[in-house]
Amino acid sequence: MEQLKQKILSEGIVLPGNVLKVDSFLNHQIDPVLVMAMGEELARRFADAVIDRVLTVEASGIAIGLAAAYALGVPLVFAKKSKSVLMTEDAYTAAVYSYTKKVTNQISVLKRFLPSGESVLIVDDFLANGEASLGLAELVHQASSSVAGVGIAVDKAFQPGHDRLLHAGYRLESLAVIESLDGGRVHFRE
Amino acid sequence: MEQLKQKILSEGIVLPGNVLKVDSFLNHQIDPVLVMAMGEELARRFADAVIDRVLTVEASGIAIGLAAAYALGVPLVFAKKSKSVLMTEDAYTAAVYSYTKKVTNQISVLKRFLPSGESVLIVDDFLANGEASLGLAELVHQASSSVAGVGIAVDKAFQPGHDRLLHAGYRLESLAVIESLDGGRVHFRE
Repeated sequence: MEQLKQKILSEGIVLPGNVLKVDSFLNHQIDPVLVMAMGEELARRFADAVIDRVLTVEASGIAIGLAAAYALGVPLVFAKKSKSVLMTEDAYTAAVYSYTKKVTNQISVLKRFLPSGESVLIVDDFLANGEASLGLAELVHQASSSVAGVGIAVDKAFQPGHDRLLHAGYRLESLAVIESLDGGRVHFRE
Repeated sequence: MEQLKQKILSEGIVLPGNVLKVDSFLNHQIDPVLVMAMGEELARRFADAVIDRVLTVEASGIAIGLAAAYALGVPLVFAKKSKSVLMTEDAYTAAVYSYTKKVTNQISVLKRFLPSGESVLIVDDFLANGEASLGLAELVHQASSSVAGVGIAVDKAFQPGHDRLLHAGYRLESLAVIESLDGGRVHFRE
């Protein structure tokens, strides 16, 4: 998505350790026009798929998740994060390891907001190691629903998540695919 | 806002302790059409005000914050929550006590996303004790900006927050003002 790529080039900040900061328009300050356009683009790419619901995880997935769900005309559900292993009969839960924070979070969704037999689109702002997307997919499987695909804003394809999702058989649509951050510059995959 | 009130009546769940659950359309599962309409209604109510930016707090404020910012044509910034007292020179921080969770969180915004001299609209999904809104207002004051007003989805006006905000001199616009939850039923203020 050209508009997103241009924004990454003009405002993204590359830090040591393959970190790309996009907090000026995506996950701290948010550009609402860009985010709503990203939702429309995800809806366009998945126009051929049956999608009953969009699933994301708090907090920074909520904006693009809302934009995609609005464009698709379906409900959004966001999984909640907690450090405690709070298992209840009412919720589906999965473990998600954060490589940046070096901590395992539990993500959970109340069962009544993830019905069985649906086709669910997973949406997130970033794809790096794929832990969040695979955790969300696990929630969908626990609910006896199927994953229609994974829609990502910024896909750091040189990290394991991109290939992990493809090898697991998921359809992946990323609005900006980053080949490398070598030399402190953003190189997109064409 | 009639559409929101009807949704609260049909899907809101009143629990003991003056708890109103609206997690089927506002803060776990989200109804995107309703939330975007709520953003438009907030923009309409503040149409006479100068607004440079919308400020909310993660996680459940992000959806309505995005909707309001999109309708107003301004950026959204969401404050981040952390339990640790992480003071950095780069961030404005304020303490917010959660009466439900009985814990004090620090909320913070990077200084570069809260410039001085602006007029900032504070938006949140719920108003109960007013801690979150007053904490966000404190961040705005630290930034030497002014509060254009506070826009709330569900205002539990029988709890202290409503009057605390008015007594502090803030303009308050709430889309649904709840007079009481007596007898396990939702009574709106007319």
